Amino acid sequence: MINVTVWNENVHEKNNPKVAEVYPQGIHGALASGLADDSFEIRTATMDQPEHGLTQEVLDSTDVLIWWGHKAHGDVSDAIVDRVQKRVLEGMGLVVLHSGHFSKIFKKLMGTSCDLRWREDGEKERLWVVDPAHPIAQGVGHFIELEHEEMYGEHFDIPAPDELVFVSWFEGGEVFRSGCTFHRGQGRIFYFRPGHETYPTYYNKDVLKVISNGVKWAAPVNTTRPVYGKSEPLEIMKGSQP
Amino acid sequence: MINVTVWNENVHEKNNPKVAEVYPQGIHGALASGLADDSFEIRTATMDQPEHGLTQEVLDSTDVLIWWGHKAHGDVSDAIVDRVQKRVLEGMGLVVLHSGHFSKIFKKLMGTSCDLRWREDGEKERLWVVDPAHPIAQGVGHFIELEHEEMYGEHFDIPAPDELVFVSWFEGGEVFRSGCTFHRGQGRIFYFRPGHETYPTYYNKDVLKVISNGVKWAAPVNTTRPVYGKSEPLEIMKGSQP
Amino acid sequence: MINVTVWNENVHEKNNPKVAEVYPQGIHGALASGLADDSFEIRTATMDQPEHGLTQEVLDSTDVLIWWGHKAHGDVSDAIVDRVQKRVLEGMGLVVLHSGHFSKIFKKLMGTSCDLRWREDGEKERLWVVDPAHPIAQGVGHFIELEHEEMYGEHFDIPAPDELVFVSWFEGGEVFRSGCTFHRGQGRIFYFRPGHETYPTYYNKDVLKVISNGVKWAAPVNTTRPVYGKSEPLEIMKGSQP
Amino acid sequence: MINVTVWNENVHEKNNPKVAEVYPQGIHGALASGLADDSFEIRTATMDQPEHGLTQEVLDSTDVLIWWGHKAHGDVSDAIVDRVQKRVLEGMGLVVLHSGHFSKIFKKLMGTSCDLRWREDGEKERLWVVDPAHPIAQGVGHFIELEHEEMYGEHFDIPAPDELVFVSWFEGGEVFRSGCTFHRGQGRIFYFRPGHETYPTYYNKDVLKVISNGVKWAAPVNTTRPVYGKSEPLEIMKGSQP
Repeated sequence: MINVTVWNENVHEKNNPKVAEVYPQGIHGALASGLADDSFEIRTATMDQPEHGLTQEVLDSTDVLIWWGHKAHGDVSDAIVDRVQKRVLEGMGLVVLHSGHFSKIFKKLMGTSCDLRWREDGEKERLWVVDPAHPIAQGVGHFIELEHEEMYGEHFDIPAPDELVFVSWFEGGEVFRSGCTFHRGQGRIFYFRPGHETYPTYYNKDVLKVISNGVKWAAPVNTTRPVYGKSEPLEIMKGSQP
Repeated sequence: MINVTVWNENVHEKNNPKVAEVYPQGIHGALASGLADDSFEIRTATMDQPEHGLTQEVLDSTDVLIWWGHKAHGDVSDAIVDRVQKRVLEGMGLVVLHSGHFSKIFKKLMGTSCDLRWREDGEKERLWVVDPAHPIAQGVGHFIELEHEEMYGEHFDIPAPDELVFVSWFEGGEVFRSGCTFHRGQGRIFYFRPGHETYPTYYNKDVLKVISNGVKWAAPVNTTRPVYGKSEPLEIMKGSQP
Repeated sequence: MINVTVWNENVHEKNNPKVAEVYPQGIHGALASGLADDSFEIRTATMDQPEHGLTQEVLDSTDVLIWWGHKAHGDVSDAIVDRVQKRVLEGMGLVVLHSGHFSKIFKKLMGTSCDLRWREDGEKERLWVVDPAHPIAQGVGHFIELEHEEMYGEHFDIPAPDELVFVSWFEGGEVFRSGCTFHRGQGRIFYFRPGHETYPTYYNKDVLKVISNGVKWAAPVNTTRPVYGKSEPLEIMKGSQP
Repeated sequence: MINVTVWNENVHEKNNPKVAEVYPQGIHGALASGLADDSFEIRTATMDQPEHGLTQEVLDSTDVLIWWGHKAHGDVSDAIVDRVQKRVLEGMGLVVLHSGHFSKIFKKLMGTSCDLRWREDGEKERLWVVDPAHPIAQGVGHFIELEHEEMYGEHFDIPAPDELVFVSWFEGGEVFRSGCTFHRGQGRIFYFRPGHETYPTYYNKDVLKVISNGVKWAAPVNTTRPVYGKSEPLEIMKGSQP
């Protein structure tokens, strides 16, 4: 059983009737329903909760955290971002969606601006599988087609991903590295592009399948926690006393 | 259930009493016993069998192939090597052990000489985990220590691995990239260094744990088989008729 | 001064008047002229020459080999492919263009099928820079636009490139990893997609700039040749006599 | 001509007579002398200068910044760290040496703890070349041997490097990824391990050669600065007016 926490800033849903119409239970609610699976225990957390719903206790019992934010990145507390980063380095999986590219936590883990080109014209996106050996590509076809999405275009200012799983084609002429994996400490991170708040992307079964695959891929593998700091030699050294 | 085929050239065991003493059931037998697990269905195949035991039928029903060879690489039929390569590109996992670095199949999949330095002095090896986020490192400590092993040293002439999981330290002064992963087509390959025929390495529980992890990691994920060749456009083009 | 050899199978130019019209001096001739630069000493070689123009002497005095082939991949001698591979592993740079993806030498160095989707409809291609830190992207803008090109689409069956520099967008709806680098042995390889024989792509100044950058990037760096095989220990070992 | 700024916190040299004896002109002075080369214009900067010697003007006229720090990482101003990060993302090269692994700037660019094991016993280190195709390995042999160095051991908590050039062997039994490259934005970063303040490592000609190679490799390549933010479509879209 994988303990999943879906985090959403939950601002658009309250301020924009169009978004509320598309996601009446909030993006977090749509994701929680859409990802429901025998192997997941899912709960949600939102920014307006105490400690943004991400108390130490919640994080300690989270295997994989899904992150959706957009409008209110700056309102997320630095202390909580540090707490999330620490948990990722300790092995908690992190799935960052769409506009989460500009969240404090993603930028902090990447070390770059995470900037990109964008356009909100509701154009067609087609995500091509470029690594058919990757478990995150399981269960989808050669590509995923989304009739209406926000465009994100290159250059996407991230470190070269450890693995590149999807590349997007956009009607307006751009491409984008849409499905990217990263190892950081003992943790694994999956960035997946689709999911603008004004489109029903998180009801698309291929999109949900990929997020579900991403959660399974990012789930902790319980490797031994590294030990850092001063270390005694493991071998007898010339200058040392046995 | 993962269908595992352990392939061994099985030559040393027949010609060298010292090896026969260490591996009375052959290296393939020791691996088959040592890897026995509720999630594996294991069989063995050896070079002296018809088609080296790797008929199309066997390969088609193999999820992960483990390869051990050393003395007789040149005697493996090119046609069977091609057959194995094709299956790897179609998604069969491949775990290449120790002297398998110089097998036809590994060299063919790497595109390089796969050469290295070596020394058979029974020295100490210590394999350090350098990627504690990797599932292949699960269940072992900060390092694995082997009291007596053949030395393999850098430069190891392989493409940069997709992921580097272990790096070895040798008593005689060398290092080696000991645990390396590669995606090729729909298939996944894990190279793991330890396992010289004159040492009881394949009875070591950490070594077996890593090989077992490698098998699970390399098991096919059933992504959609890519389609190649001439393709109709997915969009209406300026010069085309709708 | 970098010694560049431009190799071309030179078959289309002789058999297809349309190609001869676009490339009256052959694709090799167009490349040799277009790449002319104070830092390059350029010669050409074609398949119909003795040893395909790639004698040991020619290869030994070549710093970077550019490869264009398409129709006659199968007619290239295996012995010469082995010779080229050996030189690449020894440090000779290799720039593989367009349909060279299916050449024996590229497939041999990659270890995969190197297959892809294609369509010859003369559609628009736009190559986006996805690694603006890479010297191969120097001197071009955010993207390169080619009004008419053959389409190559994903999945492109290559190992994950060491560095991904360009990704193509095609009018018909596909994407492609168009500019890819690989280290193999002491040698460096750059694959660059554009250049179909019926389009004047090799007169495009951005395309020439990228190929020129690729040649400079792939030029040998004269690192120490690795030594392989049996090696004496560098340290005194417990079991050894000092 | 490459404009190089050597930055040193310059604390040990003032407080520890042993360090002052090894580096009477400071580590920055030793590096500036040792790297002197017709292709470098070298200046130094130290923490005790106004703005740590890293004014906007200095950074704007720096092609490659070399960073050595250890005892006083916490005293480096966050504003100046942000300024350096911005310049790296804009294309300035960065060479981080030894204990600089724990500097604010390196941790910020990596997104991880950058922690490691260490021991100050003056033991032997041997750095093996694992990528003989890399220009940073030019001019050194199969390995570099340092009779006395501080030990740094795995796990080194960094993202998987884009390229791994050196791996260290230590007398006490550890290994370390000692020469690592990273692309971040338009900038290139080289981390190189050796250089403890109490050993004369920065007079070693192989070490100086590698740092010099690293500077040349990291020098800006003047690619086009990416444009981010809202972008007009490059193609006519179905829903749009031509």
